[in-house]
Amino acid sequence: MSLTLVGQNKSFGGWHTQFSHNSSALNCTMRFAVYLPPQAATQSLPVIYWLSGLTCTDENFMQKSGAQRVAAELGLIIVAPDTSPRGEGVADDPEGKYDLGLGAGFYLNARQRPWADHYQMETYITEELPDLINQQFATTGTAAISGHSMGGHGALTLGFKFPQLYSAISAFSPICNPINCPWGQKAFSHYLGDDKKLWDLYDACEILKTLDALPPVLIDQGSADGFLTEQLMPQALLEVAAAQGFTLNVRMQEGYDHSYYFIASFIEEHLRFLAEHL
Amino acid sequence: MSLTLVGQNKSFGGWHTQFSHNSSALNCTMRFAVYLPPQAATQSLPVIYWLSGLTCTDENFMQKSGAQRVAAELGLIIVAPDTSPRGEGVADDPEGKYDLGLGAGFYLNARQRPWADHYQMETYITEELPDLINQQFATTGTAAISGHSMGGHGALTLGFKFPQLYSAISAFSPICNPINCPWGQKAFSHYLGDDKKLWDLYDACEILKTLDALPPVLIDQGSADGFLTEQLMPQALLEVAAAQGFTLNVRMQEGYDHSYYFIASFIEEHLRFLAEHL
Repeated sequence: MSLTLVGQNKSFGGWHTQFSHNSSALNCTMRFAVYLPPQAATQSLPVIYWLSGLTCTDENFMQKSGAQRVAAELGLIIVAPDTSPRGEGVADDPEGKYDLGLGAGFYLNARQRPWADHYQMETYITEELPDLINQQFATTGTAAISGHSMGGHGALTLGFKFPQLYSAISAFSPICNPINCPWGQKAFSHYLGDDKKLWDLYDACEILKTLDALPPVLIDQGSADGFLTEQLMPQALLEVAAAQGFTLNVRMQEGYDHSYYFIASFIEEHLRFLAEHL
Repeated sequence: MSLTLVGQNKSFGGWHTQFSHNSSALNCTMRFAVYLPPQAATQSLPVIYWLSGLTCTDENFMQKSGAQRVAAELGLIIVAPDTSPRGEGVADDPEGKYDLGLGAGFYLNARQRPWADHYQMETYITEELPDLINQQFATTGTAAISGHSMGGHGALTLGFKFPQLYSAISAFSPICNPINCPWGQKAFSHYLGDDKKLWDLYDACEILKTLDALPPVLIDQGSADGFLTEQLMPQALLEVAAAQGFTLNVRMQEGYDHSYYFIASFIEEHLRFLAEHL
């Protein structure tokens, strides 16, 4: 496993870095970003994995969230992967829409052709990438996971399924019940096919029903988010949590929308929350 | 003078807003951004004018600087104008390069055709825009000016020339001596023509030579900035300041480049510096 440095910028005394590598899980060349705070020069640090939303790459969060300031204070490495496999030969939405294919990997392992050839994001995020990060950087081996929208779905589902990998979970405006919303139904029908039992494996509500205990979770949702009722459905997750007897911390943030202006406003609280559990 | 709201996002308890309007100075429709901190709902506030660099619009600073967090704490309105006139009929670089024409207004009043028809950015920034802002928003009437690269040139030259408008000046990686660098020579020869006496009116070094006193100024420059020696030339400005007997605060920031990762790392210090003088 080797990395190629494709860019670096000094940021809050540390370094924003971008690397490319050949991914065996995804069968293509991938790029990801790592923020290394100043403390990384002298000590091992925990890692926050940030999963971005539809249409994003490794760059959106690093450019717009302002997370580096807080990561530099708290001594957190932040890893921001891409949102899908990339490159020539990787299948894309035949209709050219933004919600399937490139930029829309949904953090799952596809079962259907042609998607299954490359769209193995669950394995990439939970196996290949952390192996690479822990091998190439001085980490403590502890991690937490966060994300936005489709990436919030990724953070919740992977965080619920792999508690041994992630000490805490946070999400902004997550897609909470993809099997019951248009984005999720389109993606899952293409990637996973007609067997709805497979869909349940990637639905935060369905996974939550199977948990005996709730890991540390913080969710922020903007009340003015145009996707709130049709696509995101935090109420469905709250209902499952209540039925399970779990107290789920979903904060409805009055007036905020789906943009990075919302994420930037609350990323400090999320990083402090995650750091408490690392 | 009327404004059309084209977008708004809640941000750190306040509002990032974008407006369009018909500019008489520029003879075209312009868009600008205003960050209104929470305090703007109940009191008059001072204004920071932010001038962006080549290729930018009103959006780059608002999306990438992280300034809203500090503005919300300090109670500062931030206004980010576009970097040139825009639209059909506005002259652009015949060679299609990024350093002349659209996105490259250099905050001056052009004298040469076809540029003079629209490229009157000095009048726009120092007269029309503040009139509009002070009319449409509750301001204290006090202001400061800051900017990056070409916008750092704008902040220094307009700040030096109009001390009645700006109580303090800050700049990131400013073009300090445009009459002696390729970016400035190309732009000034097109916009201003062959008369080098006109060029001196828009050169921070030349203007500084005419000042009796130095206003409050803070300049940050990254030592790893690829444009440092050929285009930016802070040394030239320091030499003029020394000859004038002024102590100019130019901080060389080790390892930082020309990107917004640099600006984000130090914008808090700049806003606190400017706020002290408002």
